Amino acid sequence: MSDLLVIHGVNLSLLGEREREIYGRSTLKEIDRKIREISEKLGMSVEIFQTNHEGAIIDRMIECSNKAKVIILNPGAFTHYSYAIRDCVSGVGVPTIEVHLSNIYSREPFRQSSVVAPVCLGQISGFGADSYILAVKMAKKIIDGR
Amino acid sequence: MSDLLVIHGVNLSLLGEREREIYGRSTLKEIDRKIREISEKLGMSVEIFQTNHEGAIIDRMIECSNKAKVIILNPGAFTHYSYAIRDCVSGVGVPTIEVHLSNIYSREPFRQSSVVAPVCLGQISGFGADSYILAVKMAKKIIDGR
Amino acid sequence: MSDLLVIHGVNLSLLGEREREIYGRSTLKEIDRKIREISEKLGMSVEIFQTNHEGAIIDRMIECSNKAKVIILNPGAFTHYSYAIRDCVSGVGVPTIEVHLSNIYSREPFRQSSVVAPVCLGQISGFGADSYILAVKMAKKIIDGR
Amino acid sequence: MSDLLVIHGVNLSLLGEREREIYGRSTLKEIDRKIREISEKLGMSVEIFQTNHEGAIIDRMIECSNKAKVIILNPGAFTHYSYAIRDCVSGVGVPTIEVHLSNIYSREPFRQSSVVAPVCLGQISGFGADSYILAVKMAKKIIDGR
Amino acid sequence: MSDLLVIHGVNLSLLGEREREIYGRSTLKEIDRKIREISEKLGMSVEIFQTNHEGAIIDRMIECSNKAKVIILNPGAFTHYSYAIRDCVSGVGVPTIEVHLSNIYSREPFRQSSVVAPVCLGQISGFGADSYILAVKMAKKIIDGR
Amino acid sequence: MSDLLVIHGVNLSLLGEREREIYGRSTLKEIDRKIREISEKLGMSVEIFQTNHEGAIIDRMIECSNKAKVIILNPGAFTHYSYAIRDCVSGVGVPTIEVHLSNIYSREPFRQSSVVAPVCLGQISGFGADSYILAVKMAKKIIDGR
Amino acid sequence: MSDLLVIHGVNLSLLGEREREIYGRSTLKEIDRKIREISEKLGMSVEIFQTNHEGAIIDRMIECSNKAKVIILNPGAFTHYSYAIRDCVSGVGVPTIEVHLSNIYSREPFRQSSVVAPVCLGQISGFGADSYILAVKMAKKIIDGR
Amino acid sequence: MSDLLVIHGVNLSLLGEREREIYGRSTLKEIDRKIREISEKLGMSVEIFQTNHEGAIIDRMIECSNKAKVIILNPGAFTHYSYAIRDCVSGVGVPTIEVHLSNIYSREPFRQSSVVAPVCLGQISGFGADSYILAVKMAKKIIDGR
Amino acid sequence: MSDLLVIHGVNLSLLGEREREIYGRSTLKEIDRKIREISEKLGMSVEIFQTNHEGAIIDRMIECSNKAKVIILNPGAFTHYSYAIRDCVSGVGVPTIEVHLSNIYSREPFRQSSVVAPVCLGQISGFGADSYILAVKMAKKIIDGR
Amino acid sequence: MSDLLVIHGVNLSLLGEREREIYGRSTLKEIDRKIREISEKLGMSVEIFQTNHEGAIIDRMIECSNKAKVIILNPGAFTHYSYAIRDCVSGVGVPTIEVHLSNIYSREPFRQSSVVAPVCLGQISGFGADSYILAVKMAKKIIDGR
Amino acid sequence: MSDLLVIHGVNLSLLGEREREIYGRSTLKEIDRKIREISEKLGMSVEIFQTNHEGAIIDRMIECSNKAKVIILNPGAFTHYSYAIRDCVSGVGVPTIEVHLSNIYSREPFRQSSVVAPVCLGQISGFGADSYILAVKMAKKIIDGR
Amino acid sequence: MSDLLVIHGVNLSLLGEREREIYGRSTLKEIDRKIREISEKLGMSVEIFQTNHEGAIIDRMIECSNKAKVIILNPGAFTHYSYAIRDCVSGVGVPTIEVHLSNIYSREPFRQSSVVAPVCLGQISGFGADSYILAVKMAKKIIDGR
Repeated sequence: MSDLLVIHGVNLSLLGEREREIYGRSTLKEIDRKIREISEKLGMSVEIFQTNHEGAIIDRMIECSNKAKVIILNPGAFTHYSYAIRDCVSGVGVPTIEVHLSNIYSREPFRQSSVVAPVCLGQISGFGADSYILAVKMAKKIIDGR
Repeated sequence: MSDLLVIHGVNLSLLGEREREIYGRSTLKEIDRKIREISEKLGMSVEIFQTNHEGAIIDRMIECSNKAKVIILNPGAFTHYSYAIRDCVSGVGVPTIEVHLSNIYSREPFRQSSVVAPVCLGQISGFGADSYILAVKMAKKIIDGR
Repeated sequence: MSDLLVIHGVNLSLLGEREREIYGRSTLKEIDRKIREISEKLGMSVEIFQTNHEGAIIDRMIECSNKAKVIILNPGAFTHYSYAIRDCVSGVGVPTIEVHLSNIYSREPFRQSSVVAPVCLGQISGFGADSYILAVKMAKKIIDGR
Repeated sequence: MSDLLVIHGVNLSLLGEREREIYGRSTLKEIDRKIREISEKLGMSVEIFQTNHEGAIIDRMIECSNKAKVIILNPGAFTHYSYAIRDCVSGVGVPTIEVHLSNIYSREPFRQSSVVAPVCLGQISGFGADSYILAVKMAKKIIDGR
Repeated sequence: MSDLLVIHGVNLSLLGEREREIYGRSTLKEIDRKIREISEKLGMSVEIFQTNHEGAIIDRMIECSNKAKVIILNPGAFTHYSYAIRDCVSGVGVPTIEVHLSNIYSREPFRQSSVVAPVCLGQISGFGADSYILAVKMAKKIIDGR
Repeated sequence: MSDLLVIHGVNLSLLGEREREIYGRSTLKEIDRKIREISEKLGMSVEIFQTNHEGAIIDRMIECSNKAKVIILNPGAFTHYSYAIRDCVSGVGVPTIEVHLSNIYSREPFRQSSVVAPVCLGQISGFGADSYILAVKMAKKIIDGR
Repeated sequence: MSDLLVIHGVNLSLLGEREREIYGRSTLKEIDRKIREISEKLGMSVEIFQTNHEGAIIDRMIECSNKAKVIILNPGAFTHYSYAIRDCVSGVGVPTIEVHLSNIYSREPFRQSSVVAPVCLGQISGFGADSYILAVKMAKKIIDGR
Repeated sequence: MSDLLVIHGVNLSLLGEREREIYGRSTLKEIDRKIREISEKLGMSVEIFQTNHEGAIIDRMIECSNKAKVIILNPGAFTHYSYAIRDCVSGVGVPTIEVHLSNIYSREPFRQSSVVAPVCLGQISGFGADSYILAVKMAKKIIDGR
Repeated sequence: MSDLLVIHGVNLSLLGEREREIYGRSTLKEIDRKIREISEKLGMSVEIFQTNHEGAIIDRMIECSNKAKVIILNPGAFTHYSYAIRDCVSGVGVPTIEVHLSNIYSREPFRQSSVVAPVCLGQISGFGADSYILAVKMAKKIIDGR
Repeated sequence: MSDLLVIHGVNLSLLGEREREIYGRSTLKEIDRKIREISEKLGMSVEIFQTNHEGAIIDRMIECSNKAKVIILNPGAFTHYSYAIRDCVSGVGVPTIEVHLSNIYSREPFRQSSVVAPVCLGQISGFGADSYILAVKMAKKIIDGR
Repeated sequence: MSDLLVIHGVNLSLLGEREREIYGRSTLKEIDRKIREISEKLGMSVEIFQTNHEGAIIDRMIECSNKAKVIILNPGAFTHYSYAIRDCVSGVGVPTIEVHLSNIYSREPFRQSSVVAPVCLGQISGFGADSYILAVKMAKKIIDGR
Repeated sequence: MSDLLVIHGVNLSLLGEREREIYGRSTLKEIDRKIREISEKLGMSVEIFQTNHEGAIIDRMIECSNKAKVIILNPGAFTHYSYAIRDCVSGVGVPTIEVHLSNIYSREPFRQSSVVAPVCLGQISGFGADSYILAVKMAKKIIDGR
């Protein structure tokens, strides 16, 4: 198991191909390459996972719960209603950083609250692919005991 | 890939066997047969898919997003909370018709709003199996450029 | 009295001349012509009525209540507050199809609920003039006993 | 102008013919006959008016405002949203008794509040045709200075 | 047991002595005398009961549930929160008329809803002591089978 | 058709005779005279219209939609619920100034929001008859291209 | 004082005689007999108390607070508003099991929340007289230290 | 009757024995002794009353309404829902000081509003037994005409 | 297929290892062993199923709908938003007992309502592993016709 | 001190330079010049004040409270939450006209209510710089006793 | 620095001159004199501060945070929205008594909640200038260790 | 003017001295030193500003609006109600990063929404002093055109 588990939630495979005015032009592949580069540079092993299934996110988090040191989680639309993912984050007890590409607070009302946020360590939103990069850097600090 | 993708969401396999006073006496099989007949008659190829998994609906819609010309979607109970399906509809960009067998507006309060509706082209609800038939006819018009 | 009573509610005479980005470019005259054509083709007599007066809609529905077999009703903005029209629909007991040109669920919050919908047979919204056409076809099925 | 103005609001002409389980079996004609009988017996002249037009109720109330001594008002569904009728009741200043055939508090949520009630003298609801009879008796007391 | 049970709820013993601008100048004694007079005149036996204890209202209603033919109930402030009295009204099954001296709909927001009303036969409010008199007359009609 | 269409909505004929503590002592006649004087002085033709019928306001606005250059609209109580008038204002596309005699924001809660305001050019409220005078002056500026 | 205190709240004496479609056909007497039998069989002494007075429930709980080991409490309609009983449960500190005959979550909205539940050990609802039996069995486990 | 009536509402007999982290370590006896001492010192006669029955509080307040000069009232949990006590306070017309041991505004949401407060003279909360002492001192000022 | 189907929903595999202060120290294995023991003792066959996938719960319930006699369901966090599971419970028509380890009513607001409860037979919550044991005993009674 | 005090609240110094599509192209300097011209023409002395500090608005209003005859106030964003400015307006007792450049009722929800409006004389919003001009003209009328 | 810091918030300099029916006839000067007298008598040094600037209240509280033993705070209208003052009270950690001249619970809805109250020691409201006097006496007890 | 303007809002000078369990042990001085170090290292000039005055934040932002390239803003408690700061952020048009030390989404309800967030570029919350460090790094990317 790696130091870092990065989870891209629902619909994130569509990235860079559609709704670019909201989510930017980077594809998920490009984002993943950047995440790997910066992780490697910082000396952390990383695993990246994308799924459209809420249950698969939970299975993966439980599976890694004794191994990964930090989780970076972009739940996609699950952010707004998946109390199951919330319970999983607090249940597995691995420090988790919530990440969003767009600024969720400048969008539709339903997008402006995250049921997952209360049990995460912190949240980074609005910086496109850089939201992930900042999260990886923060993960390094957490692993190093800050 | 077909012109038309028809998605029956959660619990729709129970159709015609239970709660007939709400959903009518047609089984899903019978509805599917009617959909195929009318599609064929209108010269459209059609694919039909039923699942109880939110993630599977999304996988299927993404998979077909460059191929199907119209999606007919009855999300079942996902209608009322699946922002993930909503994002998928707006992400894949295929014109989508939301369909309901029963008149959702004459039922329990939670059933009276659809989180998916705002990103669909339109909605047809309350006509039993005929809701699908009307949707197929509408799909034909959309594909023909109206 | 005709088989079918089509009621265009408030402001619908403005159709096709203003706010075309929302309601489309068809004028009410053109829509009415299409309704007549398809009704005739399906062997149904039809009467069409437009008014900006809530009370006039109700007078007309009561007047026709023992004669028309199906009502197609686009209440316009009355949709969102006219409990009087709602009571009339349930009082006259003629199967009624609610129709909207635009997808009311993708517009302002006040437009996203219909006080009339709970007592109608079903609702068709978002397909422009085709919303009416689908409704006429559905009316035929209702009259034929489906 | 009469001592007493009785106003039957929207859809009340349907009385006794439909939805009898809610509104009872008396027709409006029968109710009006009873109102006339009891009024005559109590020595009051009476005028009765039914309309489905909110504006016509208001025109009539303003017209009678210097003449009638008591108004008995069953606004029908206007009860729940016609701030115009409310303003008219408080504007004309004639003591007004709000009347309902059914118990509005045991029905749908929207029926459980009356925007007209705060400016009426009092309210009688739930006794079928007898709601009017009690109101006529009360009107007599008001005219007699109680 | 009497034909009619009249229950005056909480604080009604203060009547006629305080807050007369709201509740009028009649004392409870005077109101009770009027109730007895009119009941006698109409040939009904009557029992009248005042208490400030919610539980005592319920004890009395249960006690009379197989005997009284109609209950006239002014719950006072219990109107607005006593689901216990509500359940008792529907539990004992005796037709109950809810009565208020003042027009509760023109007062503070909390006074504008009655948790008891949905299970009563009907409600009379706003006519001072006459609210009771009208209720007694209505009771007579109910006992006589209308 | 005139440059200016002034619409007085529901109950405004009662002006100056009742509830003067709220609406002032000017009668509608006096206000209309002032409006005509100032319009004439500013070189604008004016037409003034009062009705208690929502539908009549709409009929008139549609009728004038290609002719009047500015509409001054005091909807009266329709302000608070007539989405039909709102749609008409945005539908006819004539710049509309919403006017109120009283300061609606210092009155009952229901009076503190206007469903019409969002589609008007602006709103003037609280200055009695002067609200109209200011609106007429503003209309002049609008017609003159400011 | 007994090991177990069973409190039947308001209106429960009506059990088995009215509204049987909701609460079942067992009378309170029969339920009490079952409670005594099972308690005896499990070797626990039991005391049972019914009242329609909120204050009497509280008096009794305080009185027993140093003696009873478990309280089984069906507050009846007090469930939904008696913060006084809630405070008493948390004040006396005896483990309390909340019990309901009917499934309160499938009934009217006001019945779907319990202000008492947050301070009880747990809740059993929906099994008719068996709700009590399960509670007695659970009480045994609590007393035995589980 | 005394100058001062002190009413301790529901559950206050539990004081000092349980939940001390919230309500402090003073028993009700000790608080009463302090109240008597300070009252005597200030030359006021005092009567103190504790009950768990809402109705008994009301009976007592009505009973004393022509005699006591000030009431000090800690309604306990009745604070949050007893509109009956509220009406009694405004009905008897004796200046009433609402008192709370704990700071109700730093506790559960339901405790953060008092339905009694609007009709009291003022409120003192959060100072433990000293809340009563301050109230007694204030009562002295009120009796002395300030 | 067995008499009894026990479904452990999302995150329940974490039981006994984390957040023990909330959910207790029993592992899911231990709970399952107890369920099997008691079922066997009561002469019922039992099947137990854990999954983190909402869709898999539904698949399993539909699959068993003609076979199991009672379902014991702990949906985990799905309790609070899965209208899909709710529809499945009412669709399959097998009597279902909802079970929770912790007292959901003493936790975060979102946990205090269950969208599944209205269609279950009843609910048992707050007794840790014993919640399941009580449910199994209740299932026995249901199967035996009570 | 001048007859007229004009207060421009928070962020108004940015006028004409940014967000011109909302607030127009006039700079604050230009608006002030127009205000001075029209005031002079109408024979009123005027003082104009801009600040981003809520407290400074209040200091200024109190300072002028015995001198200015009318205040024209555009609180900027303070409009929506400054109960302090509201209290100041009602405390100083100088007739105050609330002014907005944009139509606040066609913008974000938070902008659609003014906590200051209920204590102002009236409100003018939506006419750009002309909102101020109309207010100055109105001020003249107020000073002249209308 | 003094033992006691008394802070009069926004608009309190207007005291005794305006809106006397709400706030009484004492001027701030008179109140301050009384505060000084009673403080001196009780042997406490006192500092008194009035400002209309939220920031100045905070600056002062931080400045005194290591020196004053008790703060008496009347935030004026800041009470209802200044989370900044709330954070300051809890940040500086000096026991703080919230004081109001009027009974805020009998006034407009917005005045009936205090965002500052949850972090204060307690609250005294409704006794005019005496609210401060009681607070000073309470401060003495706090400083003396009660 | 510097490339970067860092604004610490209200109460942030208390950092590291109080409520360390929430905000951490770093003092503002230490955080500022880190910000300067990292900015210098990244080749950006930086200016840092702390104030407890909402107006001063706005003055400073307007002052720098043509000079700073990025603003890093921690509004403290102003986050939750200062629409004035929000308007300033959108008015000055400099890309702004909102920063919080604590995870505001795991705290009191009022802290869980930011009125400023919708107009910022993005938000970083929950990482203590590191929230600022990440923001500085992000600022570098923004200035470099990403």
